[in-house]
Amino acid sequence: MLNRQILLASRPTGEPSLDNFRLVETPIPSLADGHVLVRHLYLSVDPYMRGRMNDAKSYAAPQPLDTVMIGGTVGEVVASRSAHFVEGDQVVGMGGWQEYAVVDGSHAGQLRKIDTSHIPLGAYLGPVGMPGVTAWYGVEKIIRAKPGGTLVVSAASGAVGSVAGQLGRARGMRVVGFAGGPEKCRIVTEEYGFDACIDYKVHPDLKSLSAALKIACPDGIDGHFENVGGLILDAVLLRANAFARVALCGMIAGYNGQPIPMLFPQLLLTNRMTIEGFIVSEHMEVWPEALRELGTMVASRTLRYRESIAEGIEAAPEAFLGLLKGKNVGKQLVRLA
Amino acid sequence: MLNRQILLASRPTGEPSLDNFRLVETPIPSLADGHVLVRHLYLSVDPYMRGRMNDAKSYAAPQPLDTVMIGGTVGEVVASRSAHFVEGDQVVGMGGWQEYAVVDGSHAGQLRKIDTSHIPLGAYLGPVGMPGVTAWYGVEKIIRAKPGGTLVVSAASGAVGSVAGQLGRARGMRVVGFAGGPEKCRIVTEEYGFDACIDYKVHPDLKSLSAALKIACPDGIDGHFENVGGLILDAVLLRANAFARVALCGMIAGYNGQPIPMLFPQLLLTNRMTIEGFIVSEHMEVWPEALRELGTMVASRTLRYRESIAEGIEAAPEAFLGLLKGKNVGKQLVRLA
Repeated sequence: MLNRQILLASRPTGEPSLDNFRLVETPIPSLADGHVLVRHLYLSVDPYMRGRMNDAKSYAAPQPLDTVMIGGTVGEVVASRSAHFVEGDQVVGMGGWQEYAVVDGSHAGQLRKIDTSHIPLGAYLGPVGMPGVTAWYGVEKIIRAKPGGTLVVSAASGAVGSVAGQLGRARGMRVVGFAGGPEKCRIVTEEYGFDACIDYKVHPDLKSLSAALKIACPDGIDGHFENVGGLILDAVLLRANAFARVALCGMIAGYNGQPIPMLFPQLLLTNRMTIEGFIVSEHMEVWPEALRELGTMVASRTLRYRESIAEGIEAAPEAFLGLLKGKNVGKQLVRLA
Repeated sequence: MLNRQILLASRPTGEPSLDNFRLVETPIPSLADGHVLVRHLYLSVDPYMRGRMNDAKSYAAPQPLDTVMIGGTVGEVVASRSAHFVEGDQVVGMGGWQEYAVVDGSHAGQLRKIDTSHIPLGAYLGPVGMPGVTAWYGVEKIIRAKPGGTLVVSAASGAVGSVAGQLGRARGMRVVGFAGGPEKCRIVTEEYGFDACIDYKVHPDLKSLSAALKIACPDGIDGHFENVGGLILDAVLLRANAFARVALCGMIAGYNGQPIPMLFPQLLLTNRMTIEGFIVSEHMEVWPEALRELGTMVASRTLRYRESIAEGIEAAPEAFLGLLKGKNVGKQLVRLA
């Protein structure tokens, strides 16, 4: 039986392209004792993968060349020599961009059984998975959302931003998003229930963006969930209240090497702000609590989300490149079966 | 009896000058019931006063025009109609730039009795006063200094920086300072016991400053106490370790309106850093604990400090302007008697 895989073929200079990836077919090895064969049903593509394509010091080790692109997956156990899994188990793991994965079933955390009776399978890669917990950590542990203040979220229509805003609303904050284009802004306010959404594409300079933010946040800004950086972060700082807190989750504006200076860092001082960068995989202790809240909200449909789904393993690179350009709406998945 | 006072006469555009201040003589009013007359022995001049000269949104309300410059003072009670003070009491307060102050003795915190048997009077405006507690808060509460890491301190020869570095050393950190000129650097290492000090004046660009920092901090940077901003903050970020923490206490590089962009804010994310701006007067709850440690260290001479002393109320504006240009060494005081 053959396994189709996407490898990192070369490192990008600036914007990545399809040439950086290569599709290969390899035979699936026979299972060693304790191992499990998982057939992937969905792959996750996420902005953090752009950082791993570089050979630079970052929070994650670089993705090695000529290896399967690492990433979250959900699937089904199709063969097991582990006491912990049986054929037919639905599981979430980090199987990478390939149709099948062989996983050591005895390593706790590498593979986790999931229950899809109330929560759809794909949601375990979105609001009830890494993106959801990322949003939860930023809103709960860094921003410390509480009733009455204003929360701003960039990339608000995305997998992380959409959850961050809804968690802020659930905690009683006024929530304002940034998104690109009228359709995404409509989704952010009408579907996700944000109080307002600013289309950053019609505000290409700081003056215009600041003016829009002033209207959307008449009482200033108390918390900011940052996925983008650059102009948006500058505009937010100019409108921040005393003791405002910023969860720095991503800075996609600079992922291809563009300069994204923070123009007025002195505002961090005059407003006695806290800004904290984080990566959710370093805070595994919060996952159970976060997943409980997120799972309950998804099951009860009080947390809304969207998925953009590409079909087939060969579509993964293009889906990823589209994600980096904001072509997706909500969580970008690749469906394999 | 006449009281000589320095008023804020006008607001500076860019760099302040002597013209912004005016010396006046006013009669001392007779004391109301509950009030105390204090004769000032020392005035404090501090960098934060530059911010209050502007009519801009900041953490402190602007200093109103034609009023006595606000500032810390130590002195002696020369008349009292308060049950809480008697003639001869030595006190610390916020009496401002004037020879005498009338203070309501019933307002807790406006005036505090001090004991000069083991701690010199002037130290209550320096290491055992606001600058010392500022250093303590940043090192203890924001940076969370602990043995083994490297702490960097800008304006290391100053009233705050010198204490911050010594507190870091007392907590087992390797401590590296920035100061301007060989004499200040000598004081920082030889007198204050820092492990190294970088003369920023011989490193006018980021490349040169980064190279010097790399040599001084072979194991990277875990904590940074920032008084300056600009180039120094950029260089520190480039050398920061994962989970490094920055206490943002001052950004004197931008106090006259110079742009001081942070060039690489994405490092806050990739290094999962925390940066926090603060002003110590908003954390009064830590003062007793901080003053206990600082007072013990000064009394036992394990905390070293220096003072630059100007003579007479009329010298206060020039002492303040010199402070902003780094002409002082250690705490800048004005002696009145």
